Amino acid sequence: MKSLDPAKPALLGLDWGTSSLRAWLLDAQGIILHTHHARQGILHLPDGGFAQVLSDILAQWRLNDPVPMLACGMVGSINGWREVSYLPCPASLCQLADGLGLQPTAHGMLHIVPGLLKDGSLPDVMRGEETQIVGIMGTDGNSHHTVVLPGTHSKWAQVQGQIITEFRTFMTGELFAVLMRHSILGRLPSTAPPDDGYRDEAFAMGVRTAQSGIPLAGRLFSARTVVLRNRLERAYTADYLSGLLIGEEIHAGMAALEATQHATPVLVGERALCQRYRLAFTVLGHPPPSIAGNTAPAGLFRLACAAHLLDRTPSHLHDQKGAVI
Amino acid sequence: MKSLDPAKPALLGLDWGTSSLRAWLLDAQGIILHTHHARQGILHLPDGGFAQVLSDILAQWRLNDPVPMLACGMVGSINGWREVSYLPCPASLCQLADGLGLQPTAHGMLHIVPGLLKDGSLPDVMRGEETQIVGIMGTDGNSHHTVVLPGTHSKWAQVQGQIITEFRTFMTGELFAVLMRHSILGRLPSTAPPDDGYRDEAFAMGVRTAQSGIPLAGRLFSARTVVLRNRLERAYTADYLSGLLIGEEIHAGMAALEATQHATPVLVGERALCQRYRLAFTVLGHPPPSIAGNTAPAGLFRLACAAHLLDRTPSHLHDQKGAVI
Repeated sequence: MKSLDPAKPALLGLDWGTSSLRAWLLDAQGIILHTHHARQGILHLPDGGFAQVLSDILAQWRLNDPVPMLACGMVGSINGWREVSYLPCPASLCQLADGLGLQPTAHGMLHIVPGLLKDGSLPDVMRGEETQIVGIMGTDGNSHHTVVLPGTHSKWAQVQGQIITEFRTFMTGELFAVLMRHSILGRLPSTAPPDDGYRDEAFAMGVRTAQSGIPLAGRLFSARTVVLRNRLERAYTADYLSGLLIGEEIHAGMAALEATQHATPVLVGERALCQRYRLAFTVLGHPPPSIAGNTAPAGLFRLACAAHLLDRTPSHLHDQKGAVI
Repeated sequence: MKSLDPAKPALLGLDWGTSSLRAWLLDAQGIILHTHHARQGILHLPDGGFAQVLSDILAQWRLNDPVPMLACGMVGSINGWREVSYLPCPASLCQLADGLGLQPTAHGMLHIVPGLLKDGSLPDVMRGEETQIVGIMGTDGNSHHTVVLPGTHSKWAQVQGQIITEFRTFMTGELFAVLMRHSILGRLPSTAPPDDGYRDEAFAMGVRTAQSGIPLAGRLFSARTVVLRNRLERAYTADYLSGLLIGEEIHAGMAALEATQHATPVLVGERALCQRYRLAFTVLGHPPPSIAGNTAPAGLFRLACAAHLLDRTPSHLHDQKGAVI
């Protein structure tokens, strides 16, 4: 223990994704004591890299006494440290806590949150987002939330009380990246756009195309033609295309919601991206959703509590429902 | 003149696109005497490359006497040999013939077909496809056709008599290419699929997702999850994704057609791709469209006739309507 630390470390939480790693040291109330963020995603690690990265983090925080460790994300995938089978969706907080995978390490057992699988004609999967969703779950069993997690593979999830009932993946972020880097649309921009307020206008212009009634594949080409027609400066192509793709996602997601009369979504994730999504909601005439930020540490803490990791008592001595905050 | 040639060359027609060049030597009836096809698209040529390629083709066919020359495609774009302004759509065969651009060469004047521009909130452009469309135009002024030209940037065009009245670009081919080469979807396939008939089944499986009511960005990820769920062998991911994207295009294109009660489309372009499109039409419950193949040489010949290039009489001496076959 680092003697200057006023609070006692109680949990090492990790969100270990494809490209990046975020780790938090939390106390027994779930307060964040330390944060680590690096491009140490599972695709960037050499063989044996997982153990080394974990040791480095613990050494960096001078954690001489072992603490419970819980990770979520692609670290539990077939390309991760230890594959943890998907749980079928719907899945409750308690089912997630009961389904943790185990990876022995030099510093004790690393627990890994399972991802979720939704079966059906178009099956869908998530790994990591289930933990972020747990981080904003209420304790009211009758509450109903729609949680939107923007990103490379955006997720729209339905949450009823402490159960994730349904979700859908939109490849919005990845589509944007591959189209800007590798398609004819990305060849146009020549200069970085100045931060002059016009970026939001170009973004909104792209968002509004979602209301045209023309499907996505028939609107993408407009990111080129609006420049050819001098309706958009080419430096703003990325903002327009981002708006076009995010607008598509929100238009489709909200159309599905309106059919079921669910509540206004909550945005979870990186704040700047959530703000762009919020702008798109308002451009499309929807109320602005609230932004919850990154709820992964809260979700990890909550799952650790539900799995009785914090008190280090074997979980079979506890009521299966556990004591959750 | 090559003495063994029974027919007299009357027109050199060129479809000079971004990545490839197709050239045809035609007689006075529009019969193809010679064909040249090479990866000599405008993006593959060094400075001055246009003139050299043209000279090489004429030398290869031993054309000692000059012939009228007419080109369509990206050769008329800002990155081509000579920029020819877009004509506004709707545009008739005669307007296209009257709008030819001119590029002097060592072998006489090269005429270049203008592209078309459709203005509106989502502007659209074509270069080259207008000539293919002219190639299947009837002579009945009251006929109505929908022409579908599959490709990197697929076009759906409405043709009334000899007028192209409307069109829409779908970035289907380019989306497929960038997703297979650069996204997570393309990382899965490990082996080339055997030609065992199952490729069409995987393609049809992708096509059918267009009927799910879920928009494109929310279905793309299924190209990964159907493999994870063992519903599709990973070797067939490309066929599934191709079906998903082509299905989207046809579903959207036909929905727009049904709203206007236009006729069953005609497919124009490379035969193997047209056959895949035809399969997708039937999978989605539509009648199989006819396949017209590559109509660019017919279109070039027709435009050359309308522009009075074949008889080498100055066009101002002719009736503007010209004599078209």
